[in-house]
Amino acid sequence: MSQSTLAKIIIQQCVSARLQTKPPENDVDAEFVEIGRGIVVYVCFMKGATEATVEKVFNMVTSVKLSRDSDGKLKSVVDINGDILVVPQATLGGKLKGKTMQYHNNIDKQLGYELYEKLIPLLCNAVGKTSSSQVKHGTYGNLQVLNIDTNGPYAHTMDII
Amino acid sequence: MSQSTLAKIIIQQCVSARLQTKPPENDVDAEFVEIGRGIVVYVCFMKGATEATVEKVFNMVTSVKLSRDSDGKLKSVVDINGDILVVPQATLGGKLKGKTMQYHNNIDKQLGYELYEKLIPLLCNAVGKTSSSQVKHGTYGNLQVLNIDTNGPYAHTMDII
Repeated sequence: MSQSTLAKIIIQQCVSARLQTKPPENDVDAEFVEIGRGIVVYVCFMKGATEATVEKVFNMVTSVKLSRDSDGKLKSVVDINGDILVVPQATLGGKLKGKTMQYHNNIDKQLGYELYEKLIPLLCNAVGKTSSSQVKHGTYGNLQVLNIDTNGPYAHTMDII
Repeated sequence: MSQSTLAKIIIQQCVSARLQTKPPENDVDAEFVEIGRGIVVYVCFMKGATEATVEKVFNMVTSVKLSRDSDGKLKSVVDINGDILVVPQATLGGKLKGKTMQYHNNIDKQLGYELYEKLIPLLCNAVGKTSSSQVKHGTYGNLQVLNIDTNGPYAHTMDII
């Protein structure tokens, strides 16, 4: 039996990225967060995900060597003092069925929110400790109004089991 | 035995997107292609992919209902007269091994190029026939210098078998 996927991730390298955290309302402007050089991490938790899954996502995101340093070597985003933008992206749980996507294996929305809320401080602690890098993140459940500027997204997908 | 994946795809919805097709050289400026509302399709062919795989990718990309029309209904990019930007993205074939990514299952570069070159005209024919929509694409083997502006990337990954 194949192990089930507990989280689905996309990592893209960026020069800068900007994400809306609050949509505009009446006369109030939208609110945004912004990062410089680093990575955009799209996260989706699946049925069965737990705090242990959050730890695995955290470990993978902070250790995988996908960011090029000034010497051209691939290092972790932490090692290049890069920024991290976390984008909640439930659509990653989709499975193609005919011409439509189905999301039957996505985690319950409230549970997903709770796991997402545990991931962010872990990342903040790891990145903020030793450098001027920053972690920004989207609002769970919002439409992710996003702008990315990249010199090569160098996009990778990861299934966490 | 599980069937092997012959192509890996990410589809993101966009308001606009711009991709470098030729890097700057000496005094000559870089060249870019640009699309308006539609989708960005990242494509990676894996070992064993053939023309039949290209057909499957083409059918999936043009038929899957992931683009919202003005009534809020999900339709195919063709049905909303959307644009398509194709981004060759060999990194999608990566598999996590410890802290690094390995690409052992990626297709041979020349073969991948030939399949990519077959995909583009298929898409151009499907989209250009009935509307003002356009298909643009990156240069195979180049660094994909990319800017995306989206009201929700609504990112989906698909494994073509």
